[in-house]
Amino acid sequence: MFLQKIKKITAFVFDVDGVLTTGDVLAAESGELLRTFNIKDGYAMQLAIKKGYQICIISGGQGQAMQQRFERLGITDIFLGVGDKVAVYHDFVSRHQIDHTAVLYMGDDMPDLKVMQLVGLPVCPADAVPEIRAVAEYISPFEGGKTAVRDVIEKVLKVQGKWYDPNPLAVDSGK
Amino acid sequence: MFLQKIKKITAFVFDVDGVLTTGDVLAAESGELLRTFNIKDGYAMQLAIKKGYQICIISGGQGQAMQQRFERLGITDIFLGVGDKVAVYHDFVSRHQIDHTAVLYMGDDMPDLKVMQLVGLPVCPADAVPEIRAVAEYISPFEGGKTAVRDVIEKVLKVQGKWYDPNPLAVDSGK
Amino acid sequence: MFLQKIKKITAFVFDVDGVLTTGDVLAAESGELLRTFNIKDGYAMQLAIKKGYQICIISGGQGQAMQQRFERLGITDIFLGVGDKVAVYHDFVSRHQIDHTAVLYMGDDMPDLKVMQLVGLPVCPADAVPEIRAVAEYISPFEGGKTAVRDVIEKVLKVQGKWYDPNPLAVDSGK
Amino acid sequence: MFLQKIKKITAFVFDVDGVLTTGDVLAAESGELLRTFNIKDGYAMQLAIKKGYQICIISGGQGQAMQQRFERLGITDIFLGVGDKVAVYHDFVSRHQIDHTAVLYMGDDMPDLKVMQLVGLPVCPADAVPEIRAVAEYISPFEGGKTAVRDVIEKVLKVQGKWYDPNPLAVDSGK
Repeated sequence: MFLQKIKKITAFVFDVDGVLTTGDVLAAESGELLRTFNIKDGYAMQLAIKKGYQICIISGGQGQAMQQRFERLGITDIFLGVGDKVAVYHDFVSRHQIDHTAVLYMGDDMPDLKVMQLVGLPVCPADAVPEIRAVAEYISPFEGGKTAVRDVIEKVLKVQGKWYDPNPLAVDSGK
Repeated sequence: MFLQKIKKITAFVFDVDGVLTTGDVLAAESGELLRTFNIKDGYAMQLAIKKGYQICIISGGQGQAMQQRFERLGITDIFLGVGDKVAVYHDFVSRHQIDHTAVLYMGDDMPDLKVMQLVGLPVCPADAVPEIRAVAEYISPFEGGKTAVRDVIEKVLKVQGKWYDPNPLAVDSGK
Repeated sequence: MFLQKIKKITAFVFDVDGVLTTGDVLAAESGELLRTFNIKDGYAMQLAIKKGYQICIISGGQGQAMQQRFERLGITDIFLGVGDKVAVYHDFVSRHQIDHTAVLYMGDDMPDLKVMQLVGLPVCPADAVPEIRAVAEYISPFEGGKTAVRDVIEKVLKVQGKWYDPNPLAVDSGK
Repeated sequence: MFLQKIKKITAFVFDVDGVLTTGDVLAAESGELLRTFNIKDGYAMQLAIKKGYQICIISGGQGQAMQQRFERLGITDIFLGVGDKVAVYHDFVSRHQIDHTAVLYMGDDMPDLKVMQLVGLPVCPADAVPEIRAVAEYISPFEGGKTAVRDVIEKVLKVQGKWYDPNPLAVDSGK
């Protein structure tokens, strides 16, 4: 069932705090909240984009640092400071004409609950809250900010034969 | 006994270092000490305030970053650079006319000891010092800065039927 | 033997990286290296100073942030950017007329080895390198930057009846 | 076999993210990505350089903070923002006339795979990805950024009798 679902995925939607980060924010006197991202997650997102997958970021948090981080990875669907994740999600899939069954969503906390019930493949990091783990169809062995995102992207791309190919010619062919 | 006490809680008082943070501070050349907060703790404090609970912060430490972080979460009783936590605590409960039995206090180290002996429900993170663990009536399985605060807020609100309700109408009613 | 030695301690000498920190430094574009300190260690050092103990910091590293952090805790013997720790140590004990048997030194790596062979009570964090663990007469169960310093100060002050006394009159008497 | 190979090593090549760091980057609003380095790794690299070993850094990442950190340790072969690690590696060994069998390379992720198949002794941190662990001839028990680099430098220098000698005269002789 999980394997069947994974074969259909063409789009990834990620929450930020607790998914792409550990959920920690470093508070500076300037008012800035600094977040920590993992390079292995970034590498996987860049590869997925190169291979033609859609990646969408939906976060209740906001800030120039996040915006820049995601733009540099080549992500274009970045929605920060979001109150209603369901509305933003619907807008994303309808704009790109993506079927719900083609969407993997990774969230970790209550604000992700309703949107996770809409997507084809709801997943979560190892340290998501119990309510989220209850609706996730796959719980990564990795925690948020500790390569949970890398884990699910890698799983999808490997099943679909799109993961990194050490033979450069094959990679260049975009297979 | 614990369950009986938890039903009466209407106010939360939190120490900062070692409770809302791991106890680590990042020292910058500017003299600034930067602290790391957890988004899951912040989410729970915001929800508690929305539901009508009092939240009070009492810390021996200080700094503009802390002040801003707590203000943005909607907390109004923020006492930083405090030498005598007992005096500040008494002031907080008398001003808001809160009975001691309605107060949950989470501390982790010696400066919290005396005030914890005054409140209805003294609690602590998993990594509090032995003297504090000895007087705590509940020891969270989570460490300071690693969602120990979220854990106790969630427990209180769930017992009182005020935790997050995925049905938005019910949430809006402030039930 | 350890208990006999601990009774004689009147001075603490601490390395910084790997002892008062985890050994991690955050490198900023400005060239600044930011270090993370633990509040529980700071609390213990402040209390020891109040109780009349000497505290000395000797580090191969340097920076305004470290200098300020230690000054604010009330430490006056701060030696940063030190190449030869043995020479600085000798200078410290002779200036304050402290007997070697009264000195506890906590180090974690090779540059601490020789000075640790001179002091009355050489100790180390749980994650010190093997050569240092081999000469330490006490290995804290806590790692560097994770309250290893608090652990040894607390042990000494408790044995000597100088640790925090929840009765304020007794504390004020400096007993 | 491993011991035979280790005896021939005269040059170390290190990836940065996930090897000299945990793979985490702290994103600031300025656009800067701050990395965390470990002092024990730095100490070992400085000692290796003093003893006459070549150290080379090859990273896909870049930034002034990294450049400065490595320059201050005395490293001169620093290659940042690298797309093709194989080409940079070939340039490094040919310029210094180093035989492949004399090179230890530590990497942790897919971009390191091909260059690791060229060197005499490919190694990795405990938390490298499976494809890298599969080609590594030694997997450090330490994770990236948690003294994995110190571990391999120390192993090589100890086998070759070049590790820290507590007798200063012997150290000064550069033996």
